[in-house]
Amino acid sequence: MGGGMKLVQHLLDAKGRDVISITADTSVLDAIKIMADKTVGSLLVMQGDELQGIVTERDYARKVIIKGRSSETTAVGEIMTADVCTTTSEKTVNDCMTIMT
Amino acid sequence: MGGGMKLVQHLLDAKGRDVISITADTSVLDAIKIMADKTVGSLLVMQGDELQGIVTERDYARKVIIKGRSSETTAVGEIMTADVCTTTSEKTVNDCMTIMT
Repeated sequence: MGGGMKLVQHLLDAKGRDVISITADTSVLDAIKIMADKTVGSLLVMQGDELQGIVTERDYARKVIIKGRSSETTAVGEIMTADVCTTTSEKTVNDCMTIMT
Repeated sequence: MGGGMKLVQHLLDAKGRDVISITADTSVLDAIKIMADKTVGSLLVMQGDELQGIVTERDYARKVIIKGRSSETTAVGEIMTADVCTTTSEKTVNDCMTIMT
């Protein structure tokens, strides 16, 4: 199979389907502790079953200390990306990369 | 051309060849300011022409506040990865992904 035909579901088969999520009122400090503990670089921000956003190590590096915020008193909801692009397991990896670029 | 035959030099042609570097005595705070300013996620740590290491947003998220360090008083040399894998522009992207995994 060519690399271009690899599907999202194949990535999930290899990487696992566990998703780690937090709520928007979680502190940034707790969020980066969870990322370190779970060895992931991003967390979904959920309210019940509803996806509210995503927060990443990059958000932490770009939007906390150098914007004058504290990781202890800033909530994830203040630095997350709320406009999240989603895909489905039947899409190809190339489709996803096109959307990301 | 299949995705598997894409060479590192093709990536460099697309992304550019500018490399942003700092010295090991730079503070972590200054390093993340430079990353934000240049919109990159990592910086090479150089002494003259010699590569000493690499520091990334992940190092910042994992090795500073949650390890009890301060970004103002911690030097990049304390959190960088010193054992850097390098490649050449004639290698394929697949070769590189195999090394990373």
